[in-house]
Amino acid sequence: MIIQLKKEIQDQEYQKLLNLLKNNSFKTRSVETQLGRYILALGNDNFDIRIVGNLPGVEDVHAVNDKHLLVSSKWKTSPTQISLGNGTSIGGGDFTLIAGPCAIEDKDKTEQTADFLKGQNIGIMRGGVFKPRSSPYSFRGTGLEGLKYFSEICHERGIKVVTEVMQPEMIEAMYPMTDVFQVGARNSQNFNLLDELGRLDKPVLLKRGLSGTLDELLYSAEYVFSGGNEQIILCERGIRTFEKAYRNTLDLNIIPLLKEKTHLPVIVDPSHGTGIRNLVEPMALAAIMTGADGIMVEIHPSPEKAMSDAKQTLGFEEMSILIQKIHKTIRFRQNELFAKKF
Amino acid sequence: MIIQLKKEIQDQEYQKLLNLLKNNSFKTRSVETQLGRYILALGNDNFDIRIVGNLPGVEDVHAVNDKHLLVSSKWKTSPTQISLGNGTSIGGGDFTLIAGPCAIEDKDKTEQTADFLKGQNIGIMRGGVFKPRSSPYSFRGTGLEGLKYFSEICHERGIKVVTEVMQPEMIEAMYPMTDVFQVGARNSQNFNLLDELGRLDKPVLLKRGLSGTLDELLYSAEYVFSGGNEQIILCERGIRTFEKAYRNTLDLNIIPLLKEKTHLPVIVDPSHGTGIRNLVEPMALAAIMTGADGIMVEIHPSPEKAMSDAKQTLGFEEMSILIQKIHKTIRFRQNELFAKKF
Amino acid sequence: MIIQLKKEIQDQEYQKLLNLLKNNSFKTRSVETQLGRYILALGNDNFDIRIVGNLPGVEDVHAVNDKHLLVSSKWKTSPTQISLGNGTSIGGGDFTLIAGPCAIEDKDKTEQTADFLKGQNIGIMRGGVFKPRSSPYSFRGTGLEGLKYFSEICHERGIKVVTEVMQPEMIEAMYPMTDVFQVGARNSQNFNLLDELGRLDKPVLLKRGLSGTLDELLYSAEYVFSGGNEQIILCERGIRTFEKAYRNTLDLNIIPLLKEKTHLPVIVDPSHGTGIRNLVEPMALAAIMTGADGIMVEIHPSPEKAMSDAKQTLGFEEMSILIQKIHKTIRFRQNELFAKKF
Amino acid sequence: MIIQLKKEIQDQEYQKLLNLLKNNSFKTRSVETQLGRYILALGNDNFDIRIVGNLPGVEDVHAVNDKHLLVSSKWKTSPTQISLGNGTSIGGGDFTLIAGPCAIEDKDKTEQTADFLKGQNIGIMRGGVFKPRSSPYSFRGTGLEGLKYFSEICHERGIKVVTEVMQPEMIEAMYPMTDVFQVGARNSQNFNLLDELGRLDKPVLLKRGLSGTLDELLYSAEYVFSGGNEQIILCERGIRTFEKAYRNTLDLNIIPLLKEKTHLPVIVDPSHGTGIRNLVEPMALAAIMTGADGIMVEIHPSPEKAMSDAKQTLGFEEMSILIQKIHKTIRFRQNELFAKKF
Repeated sequence: MIIQLKKEIQDQEYQKLLNLLKNNSFKTRSVETQLGRYILALGNDNFDIRIVGNLPGVEDVHAVNDKHLLVSSKWKTSPTQISLGNGTSIGGGDFTLIAGPCAIEDKDKTEQTADFLKGQNIGIMRGGVFKPRSSPYSFRGTGLEGLKYFSEICHERGIKVVTEVMQPEMIEAMYPMTDVFQVGARNSQNFNLLDELGRLDKPVLLKRGLSGTLDELLYSAEYVFSGGNEQIILCERGIRTFEKAYRNTLDLNIIPLLKEKTHLPVIVDPSHGTGIRNLVEPMALAAIMTGADGIMVEIHPSPEKAMSDAKQTLGFEEMSILIQKIHKTIRFRQNELFAKKF
Repeated sequence: MIIQLKKEIQDQEYQKLLNLLKNNSFKTRSVETQLGRYILALGNDNFDIRIVGNLPGVEDVHAVNDKHLLVSSKWKTSPTQISLGNGTSIGGGDFTLIAGPCAIEDKDKTEQTADFLKGQNIGIMRGGVFKPRSSPYSFRGTGLEGLKYFSEICHERGIKVVTEVMQPEMIEAMYPMTDVFQVGARNSQNFNLLDELGRLDKPVLLKRGLSGTLDELLYSAEYVFSGGNEQIILCERGIRTFEKAYRNTLDLNIIPLLKEKTHLPVIVDPSHGTGIRNLVEPMALAAIMTGADGIMVEIHPSPEKAMSDAKQTLGFEEMSILIQKIHKTIRFRQNELFAKKF
Repeated sequence: MIIQLKKEIQDQEYQKLLNLLKNNSFKTRSVETQLGRYILALGNDNFDIRIVGNLPGVEDVHAVNDKHLLVSSKWKTSPTQISLGNGTSIGGGDFTLIAGPCAIEDKDKTEQTADFLKGQNIGIMRGGVFKPRSSPYSFRGTGLEGLKYFSEICHERGIKVVTEVMQPEMIEAMYPMTDVFQVGARNSQNFNLLDELGRLDKPVLLKRGLSGTLDELLYSAEYVFSGGNEQIILCERGIRTFEKAYRNTLDLNIIPLLKEKTHLPVIVDPSHGTGIRNLVEPMALAAIMTGADGIMVEIHPSPEKAMSDAKQTLGFEEMSILIQKIHKTIRFRQNELFAKKF
Repeated sequence: MIIQLKKEIQDQEYQKLLNLLKNNSFKTRSVETQLGRYILALGNDNFDIRIVGNLPGVEDVHAVNDKHLLVSSKWKTSPTQISLGNGTSIGGGDFTLIAGPCAIEDKDKTEQTADFLKGQNIGIMRGGVFKPRSSPYSFRGTGLEGLKYFSEICHERGIKVVTEVMQPEMIEAMYPMTDVFQVGARNSQNFNLLDELGRLDKPVLLKRGLSGTLDELLYSAEYVFSGGNEQIILCERGIRTFEKAYRNTLDLNIIPLLKEKTHLPVIVDPSHGTGIRNLVEPMALAAIMTGADGIMVEIHPSPEKAMSDAKQTLGFEEMSILIQKIHKTIRFRQNELFAKKF
């Protein structure tokens, strides 16, 4: 059961409510997010929820037996929209483009990329400064120094910054320079990191694990939400299979199923998801048809010289063409395909 | 090396050519299909192909080092189109819809479905009469008797029949009633069956194996082609992964890669590929964007009563809506998205 | 429900029994094997089986709700033992070694190998004469001609022949020369082949599919048994996973689970199962500890020159050492480890 | 190239060496561990290593082109042995038993378990106090408080403590109470955590990722070693496959391959690795035959009441029987099977 509280609920009302739940064998968890205040009450399926619904201080009550409570679309039937403040938002009917290099390499290339995005009217730039690398001897990113100029260059141009956070203790230092905190596939079940990000008031972009199931992805999101942060974006990025023809197997099946099960926005990363440049365009356009809320694409001023992921990265010209096709496809999807449905 | 022969090549010229190849350490294989006559010459990569190209009786010669010779787009750069004779064709720019039940159940339902297809202007009906079933105690199909009325009902309406063949010895009996021979996922590497189908003059629809790789699928096609049958349609139908949220994981990544590597048409089966009714529409539309040449969908007059695959089967009304969306999406793809490219 | 019939059951008694079952809404299937005569009765779980147990002509009756009826250890609690007539048997407490080349290549090497086996007191030789190969241009075996000398060489030495059958129509020609019919991983769900092998009176060695589940393997065995052939040997041979360090991932977990669920013998093929010579010994010894009933190993007089599977094949000297270790390990397992338990 | 330095190397000699490497286009990394001091020099494969070998202050030099340098058996050919100080060691010929509950639950059960281990002469107890759980609403462990009594109870009895660390910032608080820091499957590529553990002087037990490859596991170990900690134990704990009959697919193939590629000890966790109680014994015994250096087993005073992993946990009596079989099998392996080889 999810109990939505009124903002003006009084302490006495709140205590009375908790006692009622306790007396009815519920275990409770209080959640306070940017948007609301909730009590999760678990453990008694035979309770008549109307008893709680009529109490003072209670806004609404939802009988959810789902395993994924707060992220479930069973209680929050309207899709969550996350506004970034620069006119860009994710979810809730918008389709959002995110682009940038795998790794931030230097000021010059970062400026070129940001200029390109501005020219293309793209409001979010991706770029890693802490790179999770299998080998300790690979390039591991430009660190906070890189993030500093990355964010300056972006913010000067009104572009928001999404970058990967790899450990809780870096959050504070990254906070002023980061607009969306990305959790990478390898950290998808780093529960301490998810707990910490639950205490933030900035959006979290959560990637599916390397062999992460749909259930696990929703549970990881539940960590963040139940920690107090409702601003969560889910991201499909390819899974591991026996097929060796591509680096990962981008799994678009999960998109319509996630859209059915959760109110959170879901985006797709066809660059990491396939590892092959020629597959980025068709899989990006396909993702739109599955109902994805956005696309995250790797671009670089000179892809062949990129310090990481060169084989899957688009150049600016390729990206311009893809952007046009994406815009056309979104318009088609919204105006023609589902015109009557929306 | 693939040597395309002229139809009017004389025996003497042919023998001379074979001798030349033998003397240059080639192993050769003669292939005669509905469309042409070829010699495959393997085993000598340092040979100057122009020597052969200038010989009388030789139409053209292609230096293909690819593992998949005859099905490769490296020598045959234009896509293969398979015409079924009733105005319906597959590949070569057309987008083809195939629909029908998982299994043919009785005359009445078959007529209803064929009528529906005719009304929708769909020229190919699918339907299994020999059902590969994990358990020997499951319904295993209506057999040749079912195929008889299935084909009569379809042919009366100008609809072509695609049905699964499970063993070489059934080909002869099925031949007069079957327009396209389907090879199921479990028989994808039944090489004797592929050999036999190579001797036919009717199209073969070849499904990817349950955990079949891209390479294996092309090799299986190579069996059919090198046996003498160029009319091959490849079909993605979902692979096995760790994800339990869907029956299979439909792998759209393979579509653009197959379209790059082979001249054969490639279609998608989102019904078996996902096993979930609600995923059929989004994955079908997504498949169009990846460049698929067609879609094969399971439909049934009353899906909930279908004897097999009830959970993934669409009713006629759902299918009508999907067909409209598919047509819109194809038009969009061809006219707007790739207008300048084609 | 499985009803075991007495051999002397009279037609009248049999008909009466069938009628009784019919009147109680059972679907029935009669199965007659080398060893017994059964009626499978499915579809009514509320029936009191004692009613049947007391009828004349009924030997015994077993209430099995399992999906895998005839192969289940729930009704036949003692393990099945398959005797080959030359003093060698599989299952029922014996541990059986099978060895030989991936493919029969010529008389000379076949004789060398058979001599080696005779010297080592191994009673079964494996060797493919029809090779399932992904590519149509690979060596596809020496065919019936190879099988002829393979069987002559073996039978002269009192060794039994196990070889792969790929299609029903070859069974008749292979029959006089074959002692155990092997079904390969790619044909593991070739149900027509399984049906035909069910009509034989010779043992069938059934390999797990490339990505075949435990349930599917048991169902495939059920095809053979319900077709009338109880002499079935199951074989684990590696599955497909994301791991690229080995050709296949030999899955020993399935052995103790199969031994729990079925009365059929289960053997392990560590050669195909790993694809790496150095892994054959440790995985073979490990298989013994999991309760396997035997091991099938690829050997060759000069492994590095083998026409197929050279990387996973042992030479005679390596095999001699492995055989000694296997014998020691079996003795250890039987005498010391489970001495009190058995 | 790995350059082993003498302990008494002088600063001047060290600088000269670094300059030489720099001038020859090497990138270098200094590593100082509990056992030695090294320079890793990467990036120049044409260098004559004898030039360095003859320099003062250099103990030895190894030309390793392997991707996994410090953990590779190519330079350190003798196996690493990790001594815990209580007479128990891991690797280097010893076989080590680790046992304990999935999660530490209370003092009483911890005492019972520690007493049982002491009685069985097992020197290491496992037990999680921070439990990584997919759902935020599952029991997440007793935390530092639990670790406090866990370590007291163990240390009073001369038993060493292995427990999972989930984040770098917990290391300091856990340090006095922890003898071996376990890195769980979900943190197998948490590179910040691995970096921090590289700075410790206590052993690290590193589990393979949920879908982690052999290469990734070795790279993760390389993080710890190159950070300065040589005391690393690798652990196979099951991978994700399509098979639904077991929770994970324990992959014993990796054991002999790891033993070939690295000098680090490798242990096996058949409890998590299969998720089925009945598979623990056969897979544990099988692991011994593949060359594993140890086994980690989940036990509990009353398995059916365990707060997590009840289905895969052994009771004390089952464990006693398994321990006897393990001891017998180890003796058999060491004395009879490989008597002449070791």
